[in-house]
Parts: sequence; structure tokens; C-alpha cells
Amino acid sequence: QAFRKFLPMFDRVLVERLAAETVSKGGIMLPEKSQGKVLQATVVAVGPGSVNKSGQLQPVGVKVGEKVLLPEYGGTKVTLDDKDYFLFRDGDILGKYVD
Amino acid sequence: QAFRKFLPMFDRVLVERLAAETVSKGGIMLPEKSQGKVLQATVVAVGPGSVNKSGQLQPVGVKVGEKVLLPEYGGTKVTLDDKDYFLFRDGDILGKYVD
Amino acid sequence: QAFRKFLPMFDRVLVERLAAETVSKGGIMLPEKSQGKVLQATVVAVGPGSVNKSGQLQPVGVKVGEKVLLPEYGGTKVTLDDKDYFLFRDGDILGKYVD
Amino acid sequence: QAFRKFLPMFDRVLVERLAAETVSKGGIMLPEKSQGKVLQATVVAVGPGSVNKSGQLQPVGVKVGEKVLLPEYGGTKVTLDDKDYFLFRDGDILGKYVD
Amino acid sequence: QAFRKFLPMFDRVLVERLAAETVSKGGIMLPEKSQGKVLQATVVAVGPGSVNKSGQLQPVGVKVGEKVLLPEYGGTKVTLDDKDYFLFRDGDILGKYVD
Amino acid sequence: QAFRKFLPMFDRVLVERLAAETVSKGGIMLPEKSQGKVLQATVVAVGPGSVNKSGQLQPVGVKVGEKVLLPEYGGTKVTLDDKDYFLFRDGDILGKYVD
Amino acid sequence: QAFRKFLPMFDRVLVERLAAETVSKGGIMLPEKSQGKVLQATVVAVGPGSVNKSGQLQPVGVKVGEKVLLPEYGGTKVTLDDKDYFLFRDGDILGKYVD
Repeated sequence: QAFRKFLPMFDRVLVERLAAETVSKGGIMLPEKSQGKVLQATVVAVGPGSVNKSGQLQPVGVKVGEKVLLPEYGGTKVTLDDKDYFLFRDGDILGKYVD
Repeated sequence: QAFRKFLPMFDRVLVERLAAETVSKGGIMLPEKSQGKVLQATVVAVGPGSVNKSGQLQPVGVKVGEKVLLPEYGGTKVTLDDKDYFLFRDGDILGKYVD
Repeated sequence: QAFRKFLPMFDRVLVERLAAETVSKGGIMLPEKSQGKVLQATVVAVGPGSVNKSGQLQPVGVKVGEKVLLPEYGGTKVTLDDKDYFLFRDGDILGKYVD
Repeated sequence: QAFRKFLPMFDRVLVERLAAETVSKGGIMLPEKSQGKVLQATVVAVGPGSVNKSGQLQPVGVKVGEKVLLPEYGGTKVTLDDKDYFLFRDGDILGKYVD
Repeated sequence: QAFRKFLPMFDRVLVERLAAETVSKGGIMLPEKSQGKVLQATVVAVGPGSVNKSGQLQPVGVKVGEKVLLPEYGGTKVTLDDKDYFLFRDGDILGKYVD
Repeated sequence: QAFRKFLPMFDRVLVERLAAETVSKGGIMLPEKSQGKVLQATVVAVGPGSVNKSGQLQPVGVKVGEKVLLPEYGGTKVTLDDKDYFLFRDGDILGKYVD
Repeated sequence: QAFRKFLPMFDRVLVERLAAETVSKGGIMLPEKSQGKVLQATVVAVGPGSVNKSGQLQPVGVKVGEKVLLPEYGGTKVTLDDKDYFLFRDGDILGKYVD
């Protein structure tokens, strides 16, 4: 896939948002507009991390494949082969879902 | 429970607000609207802590199960299995109740 | 008392403001409104202190029982068992009264 | 070429934007105005890097010849022998395309 | 005197402004209003100093009894036994008068 | 020349802008007003450099005689013997032309 | 002279502006108003310097008697024995004139 060929810089993380539920819990088809922005996503690529003031490399806190919770705002859209991904700073990711 | 599967990142803390008193001290049923935002909460999940400028890991200052006092503002709502939790930075928690 | 069970976090200090003089120097009863905010207070609980950039713990500069001078603004009201206390950062306390 | 003779200072990177697609996917000629700003570019010159607070040199994270993704905003236009190049800070480059 | 019993915190300095000249150079009585704010003062109490990022205590740069020049703005009024003193940060004091 | 006698402080660099082309490429005399601000300049004097947080001296990154590219904004005009020079911070110089 | 008895604090420098030229180059008396603010000055007193984050004393970069170029803005007026002097931070002085 496209993101195979994209390496985020420093402490940036490339994620793919999960598909928005198009059917509400009660089974009613949700019109596109009312589907809230999906805040759950999968990590598809990570940068090497950032270098702190003492020159040490601080690796990123998430791994490829992990499910994460995104903040409501921020992030940069990156289109690779017509598919939308999003770049977030490692420090802005709120948490991850562990099984 | 849902939060079992959610791990906050860095120095974030996941808390569950205590139930708002629905009956006033004088025994009168409080209408939903007038129930102030509950500032007491229980810690349900904590992140690993944050790394300081010298590269050392600063663990979070609260443990799961502790009762804490939240600031009036700030915090991010996180819904897990239809239940509302809140994410705060460790440094923003005002204090904890010790028995 | 209530504050026995409340431990401020990091470099926060819990204080109890001294009772406002309700009688002016000249002996006239002061209406509630005109009693200025009392800036003298007693320290009732202190946090462990804050960790500086080099990872060292900086203990708080006041002890429980000391009389301190509060800044005019800032501070967070904390109600414990219906009694009002105030949380200040150690660094915001202006000075202390020594006998 | 011109940029051979231009050495960016510190952590700046000189890039050349790829040619904007003048023909849309569906084969229709795109009028100049509607060609979005091209965010893909090739690195043509890099500075030595920046010196961190501990006096260590932090080299730049991209090499000459690499394909990179630019942020939408920022960058300084530099005209060398009538050709437009752009200067970005190393830290502002979003990521690079690896084969 | 009152300030004997007041110890400023950290790098704060307690000063007493010199009496404002009530008679102009030309010998004319100056109305209260037109007496400019006196910027010369005597140091009456000093804090222990502040702790820098490396955990070292930086003592205050003035001693009790020294004559100092205050900045025009800033400072916190502190009334002790009905007498007005002022608290300044050590770093905000412009200079001192040496004999 | 005048600048022989002027030593910039810290990390400041004194430059002399190259003469603006008064004749356009097509050979037409350019009225003063339309001659853009010249961004190319020669370094005529450099400061000793700045001291970083660890107390090390960071020398300036350009040498006297080098051709540099100035940012569009910033800089302080310095007139020495009726000739205009400009002071820039070392970190604000975009790059240098190497032969 | 008055400034003999004034010691600036930390990295402040006391300067005396050179007399404004009251006669223009062409020999015409300049009215007070049109005499620009004089940016050349002589250093009359210096502070001990400032302490950096690692606790090292950074001495001031100018010596008493040196001729310096002041920035157009900033500085604090200090009147000693009816004579006007100006206090600048060492880091704000643009440069010095060397013979």
C-alpha cells in the first residue's frame, strides 16, 4: 500500500482513521454529514522519534498496527495514492487500545 | 470494563467522575441542570509518565483507584462502551483524598 | 478535620484564610461586603514538591502551621466538609510571618 | 545548476517543488490558477544542522536528492538564476518518500 | 519593627520607599498629588533566593540596609502594622547606590 | 573604512547590501522606487558569537567577506560615516553563496 | 560623578548618551525637536553579569569607557544628581566602536 513508501519525520505518526459507523446503534442509516469525525485510528507508519535537549533520541510511543485515540483537533491530512491519511505528533495522541 | 482496554499516553490519567448528588443536603431533589460539575473522581487508568529534558521517565503521581480532585476546567471526554471518562494531565490534578 | 484527608499534588499548598476582621480599627461593625479579602492564611497541607528538569525533587518552601501572605489574585477554592480552603502554588506565596 | 552555489544556514533545507500536474486525472487541462500548490519536492541543498543547548551539532534529517512532503504553509522563496526554490526548516518537513 | 516578622519567599525582596520630597528644589511645597512615585528605597528583608534548573540555590543580589533603585512599574504592596512596604523580585531591581 | 571600527555584539553580523540593479534584465533603467530591496549582501564584521545555556561560546556561522542571502524582514540599519550597513542575528541569515 | 555611586544589577549597563549634534552637517543650527535621539553612548557603569541556568556567572560584554551603539527603543532613564543616564541590558547593546 501507498503508506509503505512514506516515512514520517521525527516524532510524527501516520494514521488511518477507522471507517465511520454509517448505521446508528438503533440501526438507522446515518447521513454522511452527521457521521462525527472518527477519533479511532490505526498507526500505519511512525517517524524515528525526536532528539531531546541532551541529544538523546526519544523514540515514538506507538507501534505500527496499534489502535489509538486521536484528539478532536489538529493533525495534517496526507493523501497517498488517493487515500487519506493523517499525520499527528506522537505527544498529541491521547491513548491506545490494548486487548 | 471498557477502560481495561484503554491505556493513556505519557502523563495522561483517565478518571471517572463520581455520581453527582441528585439530592441536596436539605433532601430536595436537584434538577439535572443545577447539579454542578462533579470535581471528585476515581483514577481508572494511568499513562507511563513523561520523559524530562534529561531523558528520565517521570512516573505519574496518582495510582489506579485513588480519589482525586479535578480542576474546574480542562480535561478531554473519552467515551468507552457508551460510558464517559475524562483524560487529564497528571500535573493538572489538584490533589488526592487519603483515608 | 477535613483537610487531614486531602493531599495537594506536586508543589501545591492548601491554606485556610484567617477570619476577616468584622470590626474596624475604630470599633465600627464592618458590613460583609466591605471586608476586604483576607490575604493572611495558615498552611494546612502541602504537596511533596515539584521535580525540576534534572529530575530532582524541589520540596515546598512552607510547612503546615506557618502563617503566610497570599497574593491578591489566583488560588483555587477547595471545599472540604463544607469548609472553604484555598490551593496555591508554592511559588505564588509572597512570604511568611516568623515570630 | 544555480543551487550548487547556495549553502543553507543551520537547519535549513533548500528544495525544488515537483512540477504541478497540468492535466487532471480525467485528462482535462488544468488552468494555472486551479493547480494546487505542489507539496512534493526534491531536496537540493541542506545546511550543516543546528547546535542544541548542550553544544552538540544536530545534523539535518534529509539528504540531497530525497523526495519530501512539505507542509502547506511556511517556507521562504529563494530565486537562484531565475529559478524558484524554497527554504524550509528541517523540523517543518512532514516526511519523505522511500522506494 | 513589623517587617522583622516578615520573611519574603524565594527571590523576593521587601523594601521601604524613601520619603517623597515634599518641598521642590526651589523651596515650594509640593502638593501630595504631584509628588512622583519614589523609586529609591531601602531593603528591609530578603528571601533565601531561588533554585535554578540544576537545583542550585541562587541567593538574592541585595542585602538588608542597601539603598536600591526600583523600576517604575511592578511590585506588590504589603502592609505590616499599618506601614506600607513593597515586594519586588530580585531580578527586577535596577541597581543599588554604593557609597 | 568605517566598519573597521565597529564590532557587533554577541551573535550579530554587520552586512553591506550589494548595489541594487538599476537596469532591468531587458536593459530598461529602473526607477529608484521599483528597485526591490536587495537581499544579497557581503559580511563586513561579525560578533564573537553567543554563549549557550551550558556556558559554551557558539561562534557565528559566517565569515567577513562571505556573500549571504538576507531574510526579507528584520535587521537594524547602522550608519557609519554616512554609509548604511545592516545588523542581523547570525541565526536569521538564510544562507551563503559558495563559489 | 554621580554614577560613581550607582551599581547596576545583574547584566544591566549604565550609559551616558553623547551630546546631540546641534549643528547640521551643512552648518545650520538644529532646533531641539529635530535632533534625533542619539544612539551613540559611553559606558559609565556595568553590573556583575547574569547567572546562567548552569549557575555560571556570565560577565557583561562591555567595559566602562567603551563607546557603544544603542538600539532605537528600550532602555530605562535613570537620573543621578540631575543628570540623565540610561540603563540597558547587556544583550540589547548592538555593538561597540573600537579604535
